[in-house]
Amino acid sequence: MLQHEKEVMIDFLNKEGMKIIQRADYFNFSLDSVLVSEFLTINRGTKKIVDLGTGNGSIPMLLSRRSKSHITGIEIQEVSADLARRNIEINSLEEQVDIIHDNMKSWKDHFRPNSVDAVITNPPFFKFEGNKELLNDLDQLTYARHEITANLEDIISTASGLLRDRGYFTMVHRPDRMIEILDVMRRYNISPKRLQFCHSKLGKEAKIILVEGIKYGGEGLRVLPPLYTHDTNGKYSREVLEMFK
Amino acid sequence: MLQHEKEVMIDFLNKEGMKIIQRADYFNFSLDSVLVSEFLTINRGTKKIVDLGTGNGSIPMLLSRRSKSHITGIEIQEVSADLARRNIEINSLEEQVDIIHDNMKSWKDHFRPNSVDAVITNPPFFKFEGNKELLNDLDQLTYARHEITANLEDIISTASGLLRDRGYFTMVHRPDRMIEILDVMRRYNISPKRLQFCHSKLGKEAKIILVEGIKYGGEGLRVLPPLYTHDTNGKYSREVLEMFK
Repeated sequence: MLQHEKEVMIDFLNKEGMKIIQRADYFNFSLDSVLVSEFLTINRGTKKIVDLGTGNGSIPMLLSRRSKSHITGIEIQEVSADLARRNIEINSLEEQVDIIHDNMKSWKDHFRPNSVDAVITNPPFFKFEGNKELLNDLDQLTYARHEITANLEDIISTASGLLRDRGYFTMVHRPDRMIEILDVMRRYNISPKRLQFCHSKLGKEAKIILVEGIKYGGEGLRVLPPLYTHDTNGKYSREVLEMFK
Repeated sequence: MLQHEKEVMIDFLNKEGMKIIQRADYFNFSLDSVLVSEFLTINRGTKKIVDLGTGNGSIPMLLSRRSKSHITGIEIQEVSADLARRNIEINSLEEQVDIIHDNMKSWKDHFRPNSVDAVITNPPFFKFEGNKELLNDLDQLTYARHEITANLEDIISTASGLLRDRGYFTMVHRPDRMIEILDVMRRYNISPKRLQFCHSKLGKEAKIILVEGIKYGGEGLRVLPPLYTHDTNGKYSREVLEMFK
């Protein structure tokens, strides 16, 4: 299944029998994808989930272990979308998961408005300050980490367009952008409902924030117990190791 | 020094030689006052601090152990303001602390605009849904706990008027009102800079939020390590006991 010299196929966490193809020069699945996939609220009403900027498809693969719902990953980069499709195939998830190679801003070409039960994303965390005309010179990782093809507002407005009323939007991001995130969610009628801060270990500032909102979800925000990703020895915490199973 | 049958004088935490007079039917100092007093940033530029809604003066008393700056407490309820004045006297803090008995909205009668280095408050946490014309029937605790004489916007607009540019505003509140707090702070040019969530113990949702902002302080928000107020045995945590010393 490997089609490029930079591709490697590895075991996908400890998920029984799951493999994932990655490329060293592209964005690979990370703890952030695991955290956000666990954070999403899934209930009996969850029949259709969309992952915005799916990369090599790790979030749909992780969600397929939690839910029988149909999952669509959208990815703008052709190489990544192709990797994602092959990852879905080698794990025999074609019935449950589709990959769309397109710009998320063209979502209306693929979905009816207000038709999706949950939208999830591990978006680029950093604003792009450079010159977009020099984009050819950027390495591929820059695309995954910086808001070049879609910024926070593009992502949240797309999520809001896709979601049915009372549908869930879940995102992983950085705490220093929390205020902007909460502003933009509300501007697009997604009410923030649950926050969880993730700290590398006890006594450290938060490095990661998990946010969940409900479209037209009304007031009431909960701040969950903090999540520690590592124990005092620098190893993954028991909570995180549980997610890897 | 006791002037009313409901007054009691007790040791003030373990602060050496400090006493505090309280009344059973009024709002008494609480852990929240201790947490917010420890949270305030105090530096060489901190010469004047104002405590909005000082109650019986516990926050000025606590701050007097951390800083030599001049501290003013404003309190609208006459009985509380009187208690606060006597608490300042019995602890011989008259040179460092004043108590003003007035509505904080009249702050211009007592201060020049933009003249204060830090504003601190442990405000009422709850919106008042009742009929204000029936206020005589309310017990005194209702005043301290509900936004009857001042709401969040009154408090933050007063703080913003008092503060010099780059001055600090520090508040304790409830996490479910965080979004509104961050909105109102920004509307009055106080940039949120530091957040700390306080959890009763490991694995519990946040019950309390500490927020600090800087007037015209620019971007950049930090989420500090969470604070646990109790250990697994239900006793105060070591961090909290340190504050009591």
